[in-house]
Amino acid sequence: MKRRQILAAAGVGLAATALAGCNKEAETAAKPQEGASGETFNWKMVTSWPKNFPGVGVGAERFATLVEEMSKGRLKVKIYAAGELVPALEVFDAVSRGTAEMGHGAPYYWKGKVPAAQFFCALPFGPNAQEMNAWLHKGGGIELWEEVYKPFGVLPMACGATGVQTAGWFNKEINSVEDFKGLKMRTPGLGGEVLTKMGGTVVNMPAGEIFTALQTGAIDATEWIGPYNDQALGLHKAAKYYYTPGWQEPNVTFELDINIKAWETLPADLQAIVRAAARDVNADMLDAYNARNMEAMEQLKAEGVDVRSLPDEVLAKLKEVAAEVVEASAAADPAAAKVWAQQKAYLQRLAEYAEFNEKLIYNIRG
Amino acid sequence: MKRRQILAAAGVGLAATALAGCNKEAETAAKPQEGASGETFNWKMVTSWPKNFPGVGVGAERFATLVEEMSKGRLKVKIYAAGELVPALEVFDAVSRGTAEMGHGAPYYWKGKVPAAQFFCALPFGPNAQEMNAWLHKGGGIELWEEVYKPFGVLPMACGATGVQTAGWFNKEINSVEDFKGLKMRTPGLGGEVLTKMGGTVVNMPAGEIFTALQTGAIDATEWIGPYNDQALGLHKAAKYYYTPGWQEPNVTFELDINIKAWETLPADLQAIVRAAARDVNADMLDAYNARNMEAMEQLKAEGVDVRSLPDEVLAKLKEVAAEVVEASAAADPAAAKVWAQQKAYLQRLAEYAEFNEKLIYNIRG
Repeated sequence: MKRRQILAAAGVGLAATALAGCNKEAETAAKPQEGASGETFNWKMVTSWPKNFPGVGVGAERFATLVEEMSKGRLKVKIYAAGELVPALEVFDAVSRGTAEMGHGAPYYWKGKVPAAQFFCALPFGPNAQEMNAWLHKGGGIELWEEVYKPFGVLPMACGATGVQTAGWFNKEINSVEDFKGLKMRTPGLGGEVLTKMGGTVVNMPAGEIFTALQTGAIDATEWIGPYNDQALGLHKAAKYYYTPGWQEPNVTFELDINIKAWETLPADLQAIVRAAARDVNADMLDAYNARNMEAMEQLKAEGVDVRSLPDEVLAKLKEVAAEVVEASAAADPAAAKVWAQQKAYLQRLAEYAEFNEKLIYNIRG
Repeated sequence: MKRRQILAAAGVGLAATALAGCNKEAETAAKPQEGASGETFNWKMVTSWPKNFPGVGVGAERFATLVEEMSKGRLKVKIYAAGELVPALEVFDAVSRGTAEMGHGAPYYWKGKVPAAQFFCALPFGPNAQEMNAWLHKGGGIELWEEVYKPFGVLPMACGATGVQTAGWFNKEINSVEDFKGLKMRTPGLGGEVLTKMGGTVVNMPAGEIFTALQTGAIDATEWIGPYNDQALGLHKAAKYYYTPGWQEPNVTFELDINIKAWETLPADLQAIVRAAARDVNADMLDAYNARNMEAMEQLKAEGVDVRSLPDEVLAKLKEVAAEVVEASAAADPAAAKVWAQQKAYLQRLAEYAEFNEKLIYNIRG
């Protein structure tokens, strides 16, 4: 699920913002609106998600509920769906300029502005959720993330994860690396860059157009998120094969953005409440995706979906090309290069440790 | 790390409790001690851990800190190390009878009293941390856990996880299933039952005696926790081989116990704060173990430790025997049988899903 798709799902375009309204908000939002007790904060959270979007959108709502319950209403967070206050991809900007005190989105949505952001989010053949969390919270990741966002006046926190995604829906079999030649696929971001290098053609389009494009043959394949969200989009009715694993996104971590000036007006107890709520959602969303993806995959299989894993030689080639794409992406920006150098070394250490532990457990139980 | 070891680490025996003091506490602890504001709660948390025990003990301290910060001191949780108020293995009992409002321990420590408890904690070849969390929070696990503990007046919450442990320290090579015959090993619980069925001899002893027993040859092998805690115990100085993976405990989940009568006196905001703090610690401890185990393993290897994985045929046999042990354990208690029937089916579904996702990711990156 990437930039344009989110926009389409929200039913808005990039230009659909009521800019005058946004600027007016910007002047006042960072100041807490104090109630009679002198301690009530009514905050806005802009999000990249349509109303009630399964998984990640529900996570944003859980955050607001937890904060209100824990603070006994002293901090109320009103959630705005994508396009209600600002477009899906302007969440980071809106928080940066103070239009809203908080935002919830995926770091790589603003990689055009902050190229390093994607390293806190998702990388092809990159960290799974467990590894990303260990790096972020105990391996120096959060500190780098805060450093990268600080010039924008934004404090980031990890706030949700998808776990392993799927490789996507295909109407052509993938039996060898040759099968990517000429393949027309909707797959944005770094995954799209890999596909192009493999000889394929990237065709991006809004979510609402994917089903028809796949059904009519305008595209041969598409990736979206995982079984839970893919099923809701009906993609199984327009494609023959469902390939795994989601090599392009072994995990996506979502972020809570907080305007630093607004953050500094919060008393310490409310800051602690916000941190704990974000950590709760970070874990709860992963648990939900792990459970719901499994259930959705069972339903898809029961409906006759042909689930396949990509051949080993194909995955090996994708991995090789992905490494080039990630390195090039990191090299193009000094902050990204700094983050990736630290992250890459740390993830290699985690992977070496997993060789004798987590990986073995998966393999012996199989 | 099991029952007797915890006791020994705390330097106390099972009979060391000042029972008179405990009974006196029992009469009053469930009543909140209200301060001038009418809203201050000073609670006790008894734990199964020595003071400042790395990993899990630090997690209990993090819980208390978070709760105090978030509640602005309205809920203070004073932590008691094992043996200070009650012995390590009486944490559940102490919370049940109201000696303390809260406890932190490992569910399988009280399997003698509540046989079903171990299914919420750790099983040989059982769930890893990610699977345990998905089952507990989105697969019906927590509901079963609450049902099992309710007759004891205790509300349980998941509050920490170790991730994959290690198979232990050996002075004899394990090259085939025959090598377990006559092996003298310190390994308690279900893992110990498996070893016995494999022809080995289980020799349990307090933590303080393990090093000498291993060095003098009184035992051939021992398991403890994982690199981070094992290194602190110095086991690498008394054993030739460090075997992985921790088939006997692919994860241990720890629990927060809350006296239900005390819980009901808490206002809704403090209840929400307790739940979020537990969820934070549940995630944070896993992140810490993943990071610290990796670092400790690197140091152990740098010191020349011979790290090996158990041969495939050995793991296959251990898995077969472990399945028998787990089934027998579940069949011996009606509540355990009910929990295991639901849990087993759910875990199989998660494992089938992982075949095409998490497992593939580990294997293609290797």
